[in-house]
Amino acid sequence: MRFTSEQRLDDGVLERGFTLGEIPGILWTPASAPAPLILLGHPGGLPAMYPRLAARARHCVAEGFAAATIELPGAGERPRSAAAEQARADLRRALAAGEPVGDDIVEALVRPLVDAAVPEWRGALDALLALPGIGGPVGYSGGVIAVGLRLAVVEPRIRAAVLFAGSFVPRSMFDEARQVTIPLLVLLQWDDEGNDRQLALDLFDAFGSPEKTLHANMGGHTGVPGFEGDDANRFFARHLKPAAART
Amino acid sequence: MRFTSEQRLDDGVLERGFTLGEIPGILWTPASAPAPLILLGHPGGLPAMYPRLAARARHCVAEGFAAATIELPGAGERPRSAAAEQARADLRRALAAGEPVGDDIVEALVRPLVDAAVPEWRGALDALLALPGIGGPVGYSGGVIAVGLRLAVVEPRIRAAVLFAGSFVPRSMFDEARQVTIPLLVLLQWDDEGNDRQLALDLFDAFGSPEKTLHANMGGHTGVPGFEGDDANRFFARHLKPAAART
Repeated sequence: MRFTSEQRLDDGVLERGFTLGEIPGILWTPASAPAPLILLGHPGGLPAMYPRLAARARHCVAEGFAAATIELPGAGERPRSAAAEQARADLRRALAAGEPVGDDIVEALVRPLVDAAVPEWRGALDALLALPGIGGPVGYSGGVIAVGLRLAVVEPRIRAAVLFAGSFVPRSMFDEARQVTIPLLVLLQWDDEGNDRQLALDLFDAFGSPEKTLHANMGGHTGVPGFEGDDANRFFARHLKPAAART
Repeated sequence: MRFTSEQRLDDGVLERGFTLGEIPGILWTPASAPAPLILLGHPGGLPAMYPRLAARARHCVAEGFAAATIELPGAGERPRSAAAEQARADLRRALAAGEPVGDDIVEALVRPLVDAAVPEWRGALDALLALPGIGGPVGYSGGVIAVGLRLAVVEPRIRAAVLFAGSFVPRSMFDEARQVTIPLLVLLQWDDEGNDRQLALDLFDAFGSPEKTLHANMGGHTGVPGFEGDDANRFFARHLKPAAART
């Protein structure tokens, strides 16, 4: 892990860019240490996603967490995959035509992404948890929901997850969803134009976690209300912080 | 309105029993005044419901609200209705047999209850808002969801509602749901043994409110997690208190 930039934001948050091999990432840390770490999931494309990610990160840090994210395979400034580009074009075409999105399209788009991304997130976790001031336990917050789902199954350091049900999950991954046991808060935008509401409800039903909560709000994909950020912080505080340290 | 009892609870909450004509009720008030009022809905039977209602009321009062409830028609110590008893028996029989609950059963059970209860709640609101220390705006919190739904449509003093989707709503009331415009927080117990999950999701979809949020949690009818009480308080604080007064 190599730090490539460092700036102190106006609210005292320390923001550092880094690379892990060829993978770019960003780490936000509070003044107090050690802080439980929240991994911020996103649909890919760090440069374009930066304003929203930084806002989410600062919200986490205000609650006493560290936050970090890395670029997804084939996104942002990372090399493209022809197969992924084709699958993404197929998805866009189906959505634009108002057609149901076939599970074959979802499978071709999402499974290779999950298979490639999850080992990278686990590698980032190794590097991040080795830094001074970053502690466990770890939370995952955001999309891509299939990436968060797989991480929740295979990565024991992740103890709680806020999953944004704003992207498709192949039906073949529902068996993995049944293996998830950590506490979950699942966010669903009821009128998400690029998503399948019933699939999201079925996925919520499939998760094996004894403690899982669904928060559904009105509006489209990017319309998650601001108060859900507070709810996510309280959810992580319940599950990642010792009772005495809760605000 | 005639007060019939008064006690100061150990956390300083003033609890007063009252009657409005033949209808018994309870009012809980904080020391500070004037307080926005939360009406606490429930399935009927104040004596049996008292412990849970008092806990919910004290939670409201701790956030600076007043809370009040009245007995439903045909419940607790109020005179029974033969038609309602028959409809309730039909519902219980269908649930016990694992049969789908026909809309005719729901209609026969719920609509007469709503028609009788809603004018009583509005009368209670008149009496309660005339008391010193009780202010507007007003919230409704709880079930019976069909009663809360009708109140949200016809009672302009109610500005926000937390509706517990734990009981049936006749399909004929879905048109009323589309007329609801106040902010809603709808609670759904995902595995509620005496309820219809799909009907609850359809009802959430039908509500006309631009700001509506669904919180679904695991477990049965009485298993609503404690943190939902905090979420309800924050929801009411957002919508019933001036921004400067929020805690």
